[in-house]
Amino acid sequence: MKPLTEVQIHDGFWKEIRTKNATISLKNIYEQFKDTRFRALDLEKTDPPSHIFYDSDVAKWLESAAYFSVNYPDGEIENIVHETVQKIVSHALPCGYFNSYYQVYKPDRIFRDRTEHELYCAGHLIEAAVALDETGLDHALLPAMEKYADYIYTRFFVRRDTAFTTCGHPEIELALVRLYLHTKKRKYLRLAKFFLDERGVRAEEIYSGRDREYDQSHRPVRTQSEIVGHAVRALYLTIAMADVGRICRDEELFSAAHRLFESAVHTKLYVTGGTGSNYEGEQFTEPYDLPNEYAYSETCSAVALALLCGRLAEKKNNAEYHEVFERVLYNNLLAAQSLDGRAFFYTNPLQTDPAHLKFAEFHRFPYQPDAVRSELFKCSCCPPNLTRFFGSLEKHIYGTEGGAFLVNQYISSEGKGGGISVSVRTGLPFEGKTRILAEGKGTLRFRVPKWSQTRTCTVNGKEVGFRPRGGYFSILIDGKTEIDVDWDPRLRFVYADGRVAENSGKRAVEFGPLVLCAESADNPFPLHGVRIRSLHAAKKESGTFPTAQNIPSFSVEAERLKTGAGTSEKGDLYSYRRPTWEKCTLVLVPYFAWANRRKGEMRVWFL
Amino acid sequence: MKPLTEVQIHDGFWKEIRTKNATISLKNIYEQFKDTRFRALDLEKTDPPSHIFYDSDVAKWLESAAYFSVNYPDGEIENIVHETVQKIVSHALPCGYFNSYYQVYKPDRIFRDRTEHELYCAGHLIEAAVALDETGLDHALLPAMEKYADYIYTRFFVRRDTAFTTCGHPEIELALVRLYLHTKKRKYLRLAKFFLDERGVRAEEIYSGRDREYDQSHRPVRTQSEIVGHAVRALYLTIAMADVGRICRDEELFSAAHRLFESAVHTKLYVTGGTGSNYEGEQFTEPYDLPNEYAYSETCSAVALALLCGRLAEKKNNAEYHEVFERVLYNNLLAAQSLDGRAFFYTNPLQTDPAHLKFAEFHRFPYQPDAVRSELFKCSCCPPNLTRFFGSLEKHIYGTEGGAFLVNQYISSEGKGGGISVSVRTGLPFEGKTRILAEGKGTLRFRVPKWSQTRTCTVNGKEVGFRPRGGYFSILIDGKTEIDVDWDPRLRFVYADGRVAENSGKRAVEFGPLVLCAESADNPFPLHGVRIRSLHAAKKESGTFPTAQNIPSFSVEAERLKTGAGTSEKGDLYSYRRPTWEKCTLVLVPYFAWANRRKGEMRVWFL
Repeated sequence: MKPLTEVQIHDGFWKEIRTKNATISLKNIYEQFKDTRFRALDLEKTDPPSHIFYDSDVAKWLESAAYFSVNYPDGEIENIVHETVQKIVSHALPCGYFNSYYQVYKPDRIFRDRTEHELYCAGHLIEAAVALDETGLDHALLPAMEKYADYIYTRFFVRRDTAFTTCGHPEIELALVRLYLHTKKRKYLRLAKFFLDERGVRAEEIYSGRDREYDQSHRPVRTQSEIVGHAVRALYLTIAMADVGRICRDEELFSAAHRLFESAVHTKLYVTGGTGSNYEGEQFTEPYDLPNEYAYSETCSAVALALLCGRLAEKKNNAEYHEVFERVLYNNLLAAQSLDGRAFFYTNPLQTDPAHLKFAEFHRFPYQPDAVRSELFKCSCCPPNLTRFFGSLEKHIYGTEGGAFLVNQYISSEGKGGGISVSVRTGLPFEGKTRILAEGKGTLRFRVPKWSQTRTCTVNGKEVGFRPRGGYFSILIDGKTEIDVDWDPRLRFVYADGRVAENSGKRAVEFGPLVLCAESADNPFPLHGVRIRSLHAAKKESGTFPTAQNIPSFSVEAERLKTGAGTSEKGDLYSYRRPTWEKCTLVLVPYFAWANRRKGEMRVWFL
Repeated sequence: MKPLTEVQIHDGFWKEIRTKNATISLKNIYEQFKDTRFRALDLEKTDPPSHIFYDSDVAKWLESAAYFSVNYPDGEIENIVHETVQKIVSHALPCGYFNSYYQVYKPDRIFRDRTEHELYCAGHLIEAAVALDETGLDHALLPAMEKYADYIYTRFFVRRDTAFTTCGHPEIELALVRLYLHTKKRKYLRLAKFFLDERGVRAEEIYSGRDREYDQSHRPVRTQSEIVGHAVRALYLTIAMADVGRICRDEELFSAAHRLFESAVHTKLYVTGGTGSNYEGEQFTEPYDLPNEYAYSETCSAVALALLCGRLAEKKNNAEYHEVFERVLYNNLLAAQSLDGRAFFYTNPLQTDPAHLKFAEFHRFPYQPDAVRSELFKCSCCPPNLTRFFGSLEKHIYGTEGGAFLVNQYISSEGKGGGISVSVRTGLPFEGKTRILAEGKGTLRFRVPKWSQTRTCTVNGKEVGFRPRGGYFSILIDGKTEIDVDWDPRLRFVYADGRVAENSGKRAVEFGPLVLCAESADNPFPLHGVRIRSLHAAKKESGTFPTAQNIPSFSVEAERLKTGAGTSEKGDLYSYRRPTWEKCTLVLVPYFAWANRRKGEMRVWFL
């Protein structure tokens, strides 16, 4: 990871995504929030009342505004930021405490309700304060939040007079690490470590109505090896474990974080990078239990997994972290936002069939995935989480390790480190041609995407073969160097591990980093009885930046089960005749672009 | 259909099933019922209180006892029958009314609660009375039930002073037809027709907490064309529609019954003959919505569908009715009883995975199919329904049409009609060799099973080819005739209509009339990633009458998805490498024999 200000995303696909987020999404989220989340900061009772996590929504919006202010300065947004910070600062209690919900509705319950997101909100406010200070957009929130953190330190660590020890929703832990890294004050790191080590050691700290796995309090975090419970909580907690483990050289803690990461990505990950397969409690379930239609795959848990990848790589780089990051980024995260930037998915299923609304009603299945994005949710945590993530994407493109400068993601941008400065220009995700201009003296290592079979590049016009080591190719840079590589994002089948019962005998299609899907909007037949014959003769249509009117698509040769083919003339349901498959063309589009046209079926995995 | 007393099941597979039902099941059900269902007839309050449908459980047991008394006379059972009848007769009110629940707990609510099974219980008592009188086991219940029926006629049809017009649970309609056919008193037929025609015409007659489709009251029955709602209710109602339509030459009504039958078997039938794919309300759902694991497929609805097949054939014979009957009989119905005759399934899924108990808990899926049979259920309607069905199986073997005598089912037995008497001896369902000895003068037509490719038989030692017409082969009988045919019950793949999303790209295996399945008890690997390569080299083991220690099985060549095959050395969940399938032997057993050994996975449909 690199400080945000050291990297410039200057061009291409991600520039467009970010411009959209800075100019449309950020403002629209404010519009959606202003009468509720932002109004709550006036500390007046409202009808309906405010909510326990409103402060965190505002905080994530502030953090987003901070990041975007670097490249998209906007006076209107700056004013909102200053006004908002002013409210928080002026309404904080003399001791430093601030929570717009507790101060108004439950002043006598401060630090008494473990399950009510108090420290979770504090964590997000602290993150916002650090981001505002880092980016220079605002410097008033940081001292207020330091004072608040000091108060938390006093109450939870020194006096220990609170009704609970660890917050039901992890977040404060990773926020305190950020505060430590920014202020260098070790007490914040100490407090983060305290919160981690106190988790899961008290049988009485139960999340009401849930089992202890729900908020990862079932056992001490160092001894956990399977990732369980609420996915966002689990991953935020793991980030803090990785951070504290790395900074304190606490191998045991870091190893536990790594085990949990492996548990998530090797046994509980959707091909789209989604995690949490259970709508009930937004939770992880059993390994390899990955239902497509009833996937939960919350947007916030995709954000958390991507952040975790970056944090783990800080200790010791590993191409796998960036592979997972790329999978999450181009699929679950991008899909969570509409192409016009205004609406969001909270959950991200891999299959939908609006006809199943009737089915779900019949079966009283208590959850039906959204098939249409919304501008606002009752629990609207995801939209500002996505903007703060896209707003700080710069951090995740480059890295350094052992003195070498690393290109981890192919995003048109400029960055520097290890004595080298580079400028990357790429056509990805739609075109593979990528040029890296490097200058300086040192070792440049660039990641070789697993989905590409490219094994050569040209350096200063001369073709060189490369055998990637650990997923990277190394070049010694001495002076101006021009590296050209064509990553060849062709269509490829992808298969799930045989233990994923849901996808036995099935395959999905990827194009470069993009998982593809089929939608009714392009395919006027049921999608359940479709098998793809071949990807060879695939025809690609369009390739410019996608809008609802211009979604890049791929036509592949497929076969579909002839409806009623297996039936006798009498219309029997069952027949000894092998069913007929008829040739058809299946149109695939990037998963991230689904649900931007008319409502219909969507499917990622095919027979 | 033939009167029970005109047919003798003398040998073979079904003789053994029936002996087991007569000597074990019937007695064990009485043992399970005596302290609750039978005790309720004392008309004393109990703790816990009795239940609204206890009378129907007793009635079905009495009906079973009547049928079995013909071939399995048993003094002990006869005593119970007489005692039980005596209690009913002596406790009936002077007006004729009898209901052990209402008389004790809600005497002021008689005929006021549409949803409380009052007429449903009356219907079953009437059926029992007819069966006892027909078989000569008891003659005291019939006059009592006639008096009760007369009272119902007076209240519902003449005075119309009841709080509802049609019962929430159809059954009385078909029972009244039976009573009419047995007594020739037309008022019972008139009342049955009245109940049918009054159904669905009153918007206010709503089954509380359900929609109007639940008990088929959403529209007049004559205009219904899709079978909907609670499966047992829907099918009992359809039986009465077919009966009244046939007897009254009411083509409109009969056509509606036939449409509902077609709706059921062409769009909502499991390959096992099960119906009702929704645990919630035990209901039919959308056409082609046939989930395997969450199939409901209640045993009683299989009984009802089999009965409906017989009733429809009474008007105009059609091989399809007997094909469906055979499918229901050898699969869903047989599977509903343990091999030892003591325990029963209420629901009959086509796939189970005990590991999914954890899954179901995670997903809070409100229903998990039973994987173990029980001797008694809280709602124990199915066990005595199954025994009364098996007890009267004789009725369903033969038929007559246009003067010809029909052999509809291959069950070792003797029957007569159309001037011919026949004796059938068959090795089915395990061996195809079948001999029909016919005597007399007339036309014999025997059904050619759809699963058999046999196209010849020998008549008096001379081979004749046959081209079945309408699913039957005809032979003119004049004197003693010996017909030998080998039905060749080989293994065959069966495919579902392409609209059944659940089974797209899958196939099941049948052996003659038997649907097969695989169980963990024989196959020590997960069953989800298995595909059958070929049935040609199948090896059959054992073929005698199945017990838990001696279940006939078939070993077929298969392949299973290598666990983790598609993964890289790092254990990734997703891979571009095509997964490896490794050869294995898959052992298949008849579906009806499942769950008689240790608990484990079971699966009917394979990739």
